[in-house]
Amino acid sequence: MSAQTAEDQRIVVATEAGRALEALRTSRPLVQNITNFVSMDIAANALLAIGASPAMVHAVEELDEFGSFIGALVINIGTLSATWTDAMDKAAEGARRRAKPWVLDPVGAGATRFRTETVLRLLKHGPVVIRGNASEVLAIAGALGLAAATARNKGVDSGNTADEAASVAAALARETGAIVVATGAIDLVTDGTRNLRVANGSPVMSQVTAVGCALSAVTGAFCAVASPFEAAVASAACFGVVGEMAAATSPLPGSFRVAFIDGLAALRPADLVERLRLA
Amino acid sequence: MSAQTAEDQRIVVATEAGRALEALRTSRPLVQNITNFVSMDIAANALLAIGASPAMVHAVEELDEFGSFIGALVINIGTLSATWTDAMDKAAEGARRRAKPWVLDPVGAGATRFRTETVLRLLKHGPVVIRGNASEVLAIAGALGLAAATARNKGVDSGNTADEAASVAAALARETGAIVVATGAIDLVTDGTRNLRVANGSPVMSQVTAVGCALSAVTGAFCAVASPFEAAVASAACFGVVGEMAAATSPLPGSFRVAFIDGLAALRPADLVERLRLA
Amino acid sequence: MSAQTAEDQRIVVATEAGRALEALRTSRPLVQNITNFVSMDIAANALLAIGASPAMVHAVEELDEFGSFIGALVINIGTLSATWTDAMDKAAEGARRRAKPWVLDPVGAGATRFRTETVLRLLKHGPVVIRGNASEVLAIAGALGLAAATARNKGVDSGNTADEAASVAAALARETGAIVVATGAIDLVTDGTRNLRVANGSPVMSQVTAVGCALSAVTGAFCAVASPFEAAVASAACFGVVGEMAAATSPLPGSFRVAFIDGLAALRPADLVERLRLA
Repeated sequence: MSAQTAEDQRIVVATEAGRALEALRTSRPLVQNITNFVSMDIAANALLAIGASPAMVHAVEELDEFGSFIGALVINIGTLSATWTDAMDKAAEGARRRAKPWVLDPVGAGATRFRTETVLRLLKHGPVVIRGNASEVLAIAGALGLAAATARNKGVDSGNTADEAASVAAALARETGAIVVATGAIDLVTDGTRNLRVANGSPVMSQVTAVGCALSAVTGAFCAVASPFEAAVASAACFGVVGEMAAATSPLPGSFRVAFIDGLAALRPADLVERLRLA
Repeated sequence: MSAQTAEDQRIVVATEAGRALEALRTSRPLVQNITNFVSMDIAANALLAIGASPAMVHAVEELDEFGSFIGALVINIGTLSATWTDAMDKAAEGARRRAKPWVLDPVGAGATRFRTETVLRLLKHGPVVIRGNASEVLAIAGALGLAAATARNKGVDSGNTADEAASVAAALARETGAIVVATGAIDLVTDGTRNLRVANGSPVMSQVTAVGCALSAVTGAFCAVASPFEAAVASAACFGVVGEMAAATSPLPGSFRVAFIDGLAALRPADLVERLRLA
Repeated sequence: MSAQTAEDQRIVVATEAGRALEALRTSRPLVQNITNFVSMDIAANALLAIGASPAMVHAVEELDEFGSFIGALVINIGTLSATWTDAMDKAAEGARRRAKPWVLDPVGAGATRFRTETVLRLLKHGPVVIRGNASEVLAIAGALGLAAATARNKGVDSGNTADEAASVAAALARETGAIVVATGAIDLVTDGTRNLRVANGSPVMSQVTAVGCALSAVTGAFCAVASPFEAAVASAACFGVVGEMAAATSPLPGSFRVAFIDGLAALRPADLVERLRLA
């Protein structure tokens, strides 16, 4: 691809992401999260900051009723337990039945059989986006027989890079019909055919807990206003650009987290056009 | 009411709130919270910052024993599940039996039957304050047959204003014997006869998750040192004034949250007298 | 002890703590936490900031598998419930069986029988460090018949000083074989024979929720790279020195918390040598 074409593509992608951001702020979608205890605070605050309306609702008694008026659902298996898997299963089933988009964050897939099996169970309900780190993506693909089992989980952190996951992520997208996002130093977004790599971000993002979980939550919000592929790209672009800007002024993790939430609220579409980098 | 009388009232209210604040800091009440996962961090930190001693205790095995030495109890149904409703019920029953004040935060009442029914069940134990947004207050009143069902919940956020809730809030207060606080751009405090409107605050407060939950927690702390009406006014005044001051220096949600907790710790009675606004 | 000897000892202790810090950052141990809902965010962020890899994993279905690749385990009974005690028991048993170090934070021991009994049950699995406030240490010793019951809990806060706990802490260490850390204005570390008192820190640390819980989590991380006594001293030294530095620039609790996390990430061994104070 020529330099001109690459720059054209970059501007197109950034412009589309900016439009999705404006649509999100206009419609302020209600995003239901069944997520882990560690991420609840930062995920809710990230959703509010970017302009969505978060709700953390997981009781089986109310899932069906609540699910009828959401814009999107996000399921994150971080602090998993058997009680919650039933709620996740029911909520995902309901979202699919109502054709509401739902996003799966398979935290720690591959680290234990319990996690891998929970992911396989949830995949049956057709998430529109799977957002994980490289090890999680490799582990899921391995469990589905799409790749040799090469995941190197370190607890819930990744021991693999997004590049290692690239071809496997595409295979996983084709197999599941979901957009697959493998995040890391570079964030890969793939539908199995089209691949896009967002190169923004900062290493300090991995020094703050649950930034990846918050990205999955925000991806859900974008799915309420854009196609899953556009939503995955827009959320990765917003997080990468805001993370980079926040790290420039606040390189240490405590103040970075504050600057990052501020940055999500202050982010303008023009920032995306100016700063987005594709790899 | 003449301008002079209104200013007199404002100063009386602010002075009483300042006295309650000093009493809270002197006695440092132990406030038990059975609250949602999203709010635990900010509620505990708000209680510590303003000068109370928080404890998040919800196991049925220890509720009775723990309830014997608390100053107040706060129940918040944010991330509800069936297991927790039993603990809430038992804790509220114990608080009433011991004549300890308890505050109810009916998060998402009206959004699902499960929530509305849980609220109705808890109301039997006589909370001294009900603190919700306008939609929640309308939904509870509707469920009690006090008002036509006009709640416009958006998930756990309000689609109604405090003004819409005003007459209904008063009816709810008369019916339940609780002080009702309907928060929003203006915070209404009513005992069914006397109404007071706190006009401080900032829109950024609704961009940070669980600030309302933290207000309910702090209202509990004030209930340990003042009458429920005074406690409700004092907590709304403190949150409004601190929120306004914090937003003036830190208008974005990440840094606002930090400044808000700082402000609760730094708040002096004189700030209330200087800045409180009644509507 | 002469002034020279005391200064020599101080430098030796600080130097060893600095070496442990470097070892922690090099090996980046995976620390499993079964901890309370209030502390999850700050504990995970403290672990990441100082250089460890946190995982909050508590499902009985995966404890055994997950426990095989951790560097250390931390159990904190803050927001206790019966479901979680089974997970704590199983995880502690597994850690002992595999000779992995595990740290017990007995939040609120003595406040209720449920808590005291849970602590006694967990003690059978041989924690290498017990980290609590003075009231909790006194309560555990009392329950083991090692001391008259003089604990003055205030909910989950301490009504006792570390000095009151000193001889009892030593007796508890001898009885259990664990290093006992009784934190407060001065942090006492004892193995029953050798006692060490870290005098750094700031009162604002007790105005931020779960800083003690975060200390227990970080103690776990150090246990993966040093002996339990060295780990307990190193973690108390790091928290005390960073707390003191953060309070100097950020004396209010909201901004203190941010500065504290920043400080853990920025801490150099030389800071420990320069600033550690023993009492």
